[in-house]
Amino acid sequence: MIPFKLTEELLSEIEQLIDDRQDDALHTMMEEVHYADIAEIINELNEDQATYLIKLLDSGKTSDVLTELDEDVREAILGNLSSKEIAGELEELDTDDAADIIAELPREIVQEVISEITDREHARDIVDLLRYDENSAGGLMAKELVKVNENWTVLTCVREMRHQAENVTRVHSIYVVDDEGILKGRLSLKDLLTASTKAPIREVYIPKVDFVNVNEKPEEVAKIMSKYDLEAIPVVDEIGRLVGRITIDDIVDVIREEADKDYQLAAGISQDVEADDSIWELTRARLPWLFLGLVGGVGAAAIMGGFESLISQHAILFFFTPLIAAMAGNVGVQSSAIIVQGLANDDLKGSITQRLVKEMMLAALNGLILAAVLLLFTWFWKGNLPTALAISISLIAVIVVAGIVGTFIPLFLHRRGIDPAIATGPFITTSNDIFGILIYFWIAKLLLGIG
Amino acid sequence: MIPFKLTEELLSEIEQLIDDRQDDALHTMMEEVHYADIAEIINELNEDQATYLIKLLDSGKTSDVLTELDEDVREAILGNLSSKEIAGELEELDTDDAADIIAELPREIVQEVISEITDREHARDIVDLLRYDENSAGGLMAKELVKVNENWTVLTCVREMRHQAENVTRVHSIYVVDDEGILKGRLSLKDLLTASTKAPIREVYIPKVDFVNVNEKPEEVAKIMSKYDLEAIPVVDEIGRLVGRITIDDIVDVIREEADKDYQLAAGISQDVEADDSIWELTRARLPWLFLGLVGGVGAAAIMGGFESLISQHAILFFFTPLIAAMAGNVGVQSSAIIVQGLANDDLKGSITQRLVKEMMLAALNGLILAAVLLLFTWFWKGNLPTALAISISLIAVIVVAGIVGTFIPLFLHRRGIDPAIATGPFITTSNDIFGILIYFWIAKLLLGIG
Repeated sequence: MIPFKLTEELLSEIEQLIDDRQDDALHTMMEEVHYADIAEIINELNEDQATYLIKLLDSGKTSDVLTELDEDVREAILGNLSSKEIAGELEELDTDDAADIIAELPREIVQEVISEITDREHARDIVDLLRYDENSAGGLMAKELVKVNENWTVLTCVREMRHQAENVTRVHSIYVVDDEGILKGRLSLKDLLTASTKAPIREVYIPKVDFVNVNEKPEEVAKIMSKYDLEAIPVVDEIGRLVGRITIDDIVDVIREEADKDYQLAAGISQDVEADDSIWELTRARLPWLFLGLVGGVGAAAIMGGFESLISQHAILFFFTPLIAAMAGNVGVQSSAIIVQGLANDDLKGSITQRLVKEMMLAALNGLILAAVLLLFTWFWKGNLPTALAISISLIAVIVVAGIVGTFIPLFLHRRGIDPAIATGPFITTSNDIFGILIYFWIAKLLLGIG
Repeated sequence: MIPFKLTEELLSEIEQLIDDRQDDALHTMMEEVHYADIAEIINELNEDQATYLIKLLDSGKTSDVLTELDEDVREAILGNLSSKEIAGELEELDTDDAADIIAELPREIVQEVISEITDREHARDIVDLLRYDENSAGGLMAKELVKVNENWTVLTCVREMRHQAENVTRVHSIYVVDDEGILKGRLSLKDLLTASTKAPIREVYIPKVDFVNVNEKPEEVAKIMSKYDLEAIPVVDEIGRLVGRITIDDIVDVIREEADKDYQLAAGISQDVEADDSIWELTRARLPWLFLGLVGGVGAAAIMGGFESLISQHAILFFFTPLIAAMAGNVGVQSSAIIVQGLANDDLKGSITQRLVKEMMLAALNGLILAAVLLLFTWFWKGNLPTALAISISLIAVIVVAGIVGTFIPLFLHRRGIDPAIATGPFITTSNDIFGILIYFWIAKLLLGIG
């Protein structure tokens, strides 16, 4: 496959064709292009050009394009379409994608758009999905699935399945339900084909099936599906009725978004932003964490102000404060990152105390090695062994405390039901800066026998 | 689904059963447990217990368990199995998983194990796979797929497919090849069922099919499959022959591993470690970055030593060095994280210059706001407006430079073909610490008219 590459030339060629209203040329050009690539093109066009192209192309294709667009671009384009046109697009989409788009529409036109959908069953399914929290299995699932009643015969089943499969892009599994719609099991295509046509489904289905509750968190669904290598999972309501199914492609998106979010939090970016967002959006996502850093720095300055009397005799202590702050911050971030990842992947075993003891030993080991190096450097630099010793011993203490803080905070947040990912990055760095400098001066003062 | 939860009680119950050689009870107990969960159990057992359980259970199940185990546990268990027993396990696995396990075996037994595999076609496929670089599409793919010749009739095709499908756990697509084995297209099950049995495949297949080259990087395959929502993709060699296929569950693992690696790099952890690894492994992964931080801190101390003459008149300048270092580090990490993510997701548009200008404006805006706050604080604290102004103006300069460095370094590394993810975290923090403090003292000195 030659991967599609949106070059400047291609883009300006398309813009020219749109501005010249070369409909035939556009049609021919776009015919071979995948909807995900068309979305990439449209994200770069201006609103008028984008709307023109969407209206020009067939809704079988543009509906998929719409689902792939950046949110602001999609909003702009839908604002230029009539309710009937929007309904036409939704008609082509699976219910989960359609519901996602409707959830973004302005309240006042939602009802009108839904009333314009000609396939009433499709409309009902979409409306059902709108009820679920976006951040739950219900918010992820689609209504498109193939289900059969345990009381049917194989023959009825095959006939019904053929009908249902028309609406389902990819049949992953055939689910078996009872008269109440409660999920009982699944059916393998192989068993279905080899069983007698008169046999009741009850006798051929597999009663073991993985499923998730409609209120399950998307991250949990992702964990289950990737742990058990599932490509689709049925979703049941509180009394076990089959209400939808989630496919692996939606889960891939969940995993990517989670990873992006954790990464940004660790880097001190508080909202989901991209490099191409406006300066204003980027500032809003970044400034809060920088403020936190500022507060930490001011706190550190205030602490150092309190030790000002040392400055004439032991100026060198002040030269190492950035080093102390950096080491405290780095160790804290390392410790917390490992804990955050362990919690996310569910592979943390043992008690908090064990964890803290291990981290303390680890930090002490790292601290000893680093302190030895620093000792040699400061000793040679200033030729003053007591000061060099005081600085190095303080460094060990600072590193051990930083490791403990970095381990404890995410575990504590997790216990309290707060996403521990916010603990890595600036939060840990800032508190460790202040703590570190306080401990450093306090121990150094003690060791040097001042005050 | 009630998620499986490995409790302390359950674990010690299983250990007791193994130690008492209660084979029947173990069989009954494990029958209902998913292989991924059995792997979780075995990861916690000691080597003897683990080997006993693997030997006890049926290889249809234990082969899958083996693929899910931690690498060190798997290595220990396989060391206790005979070549024949290992071959028996491999026989049950898909070729990609079997090849991954063989690649971990000691060189001297590989040939023996392969010779013990009774299904010679399976053995040949595994040997073929061993040739590919682990870090390529070839290293990810499996040989199990359903392919038909374009010259066959629909009838031959259905007969052949039934045979091939026996070896394929999940049929995602039916691939069409010519007499040379070159990938021509795919076949939909629907078309196959509705076409006349005598029609040649040539007339019913879909000539458009996504594929990847066998040398493609796993991250690229992941991007393509998730962009185009594919559940499986065929892999072709240099002349277009169909040699394997990659399924989405392998890609989910690739995405998770990539995300974990980037997260750890950003947090200053250089190897793939988990919270439960030994203190020694954790130290090896963390110490190099801490050393880097130490070097940065020593550099900063040396710079401050060079400005020692300022200390009697302007001690306050020294109090703010941790703040300056922290802000330079935080801004640098924020800028680089956004670039790294943009590069990973392929959504960076425009030139490096545009990017740098934007980051400069963003940093200047953030810097202005933060400097204004800092100005008020220092002015009130010490009542000395010139010093407060000097500190604040330096802060703006430091933030702007940090933003530019944070943007430039990952873009530069990417251009040079180096993974930009190593740029976030300690690397950026350390260089920005040194830069920041140098700029800070230099500008402050200039503004305060000293020296």
